[in-house]
Amino acid sequence: MREEFQADLNEVNRLLVTMSEAVRAALRKATSALLTADLKAAETVIERDIEVDKIYQQVETKVADTIARQAPVASDLRTLITALHISADLERMGDLAEHVAKTAQRRHPSPAVPAELRPVFKEMAVVADRMAEQITNLIGTPDATLAAELEGQDDAMDDLERALFKVLLDDDWPYGAETAIDGALLGRFYERYADHAVNIGEQLIYLITGEPVSDLT
Amino acid sequence: MREEFQADLNEVNRLLVTMSEAVRAALRKATSALLTADLKAAETVIERDIEVDKIYQQVETKVADTIARQAPVASDLRTLITALHISADLERMGDLAEHVAKTAQRRHPSPAVPAELRPVFKEMAVVADRMAEQITNLIGTPDATLAAELEGQDDAMDDLERALFKVLLDDDWPYGAETAIDGALLGRFYERYADHAVNIGEQLIYLITGEPVSDLT
Repeated sequence: MREEFQADLNEVNRLLVTMSEAVRAALRKATSALLTADLKAAETVIERDIEVDKIYQQVETKVADTIARQAPVASDLRTLITALHISADLERMGDLAEHVAKTAQRRHPSPAVPAELRPVFKEMAVVADRMAEQITNLIGTPDATLAAELEGQDDAMDDLERALFKVLLDDDWPYGAETAIDGALLGRFYERYADHAVNIGEQLIYLITGEPVSDLT
Repeated sequence: MREEFQADLNEVNRLLVTMSEAVRAALRKATSALLTADLKAAETVIERDIEVDKIYQQVETKVADTIARQAPVASDLRTLITALHISADLERMGDLAEHVAKTAQRRHPSPAVPAELRPVFKEMAVVADRMAEQITNLIGTPDATLAAELEGQDDAMDDLERALFKVLLDDDWPYGAETAIDGALLGRFYERYADHAVNIGEQLIYLITGEPVSDLT
């Protein structure tokens, strides 16, 4: 029974790692679509989001099935419920990558992001990618100290969003309201992507320490 | 045992209804703060979001506790997992109401929304409020037909968001990038609030019919 349960957990974990790798790859490709006006890349991200949604359903089914068969309690049950939360955050990260891709698609063949804004989006993408990499590793090997570091990276993301808004709101902004709105929404997509990575870190901390992190974002 | 389980479910349900009422009240007050530049109302919404977060934790605890004690299977287990999803959507709706309030607070004593945009935000708030009312009723008394109607209201919300963007992107838009960005983000907060209400409707349909609604938003 115990061995069977461990095999169930391993399967849930494997699904979450796959999902996490998929949403990381999605945002990388979406960023590339955004910064180089690459329509093919944008379309690929949009098409592939359904794969993330499918894994989300698989996690859900596997967790429900495991609870029903194994009737886990205490930390075993907590692990399974945490897996549900993590998969919901990952599913949303996939959606946000898709939103970035859709912005690139909508503006194609024009670039959605003018040259002045490209450096800040490049940096946002680097931070987001590092966070996605970290949660992929953490799901594989939970570590409360590393999970807590995600907060610091999220602060870096918030600073970048502020820097972005400074450019968008400059009196000399030359691109009009539409490009400003696209820029603000894109900034929000990256920032929310990072928020969900932080949520996942908090879930993992809760899993390891048994102490909930109260600050819901 | 069965009676005890039913009492547990009733308690979870009661928490969800309370939460749903709270996030409905939050967006009503946030809208009023937004449209009348009412700082006190904005602050109240921001302060009270912690109450929604607390109920969210209570649902989580109660569900885990019920699973551990009752070892439910099949539709009983599904009901409990659905409750987790619903509370996560409600928690996020509370956050979105808080974002609307924070926009009003940041711009106070100026109104965050210029006169031309007030009608469309008023309408968005009416649609959002109707959807929140509907999910409150549906959590109390699940009904797949009524739950499916939320989709139609969400379409109305999407139309309103498009109408909003038409104004924001008009060549004669006189208010500059900052007000355009605020308008776009506010529009997104209402639209996301409605999306989460649709998600809850889909969860309730799944609960009643056993058929998942595949379209994740």
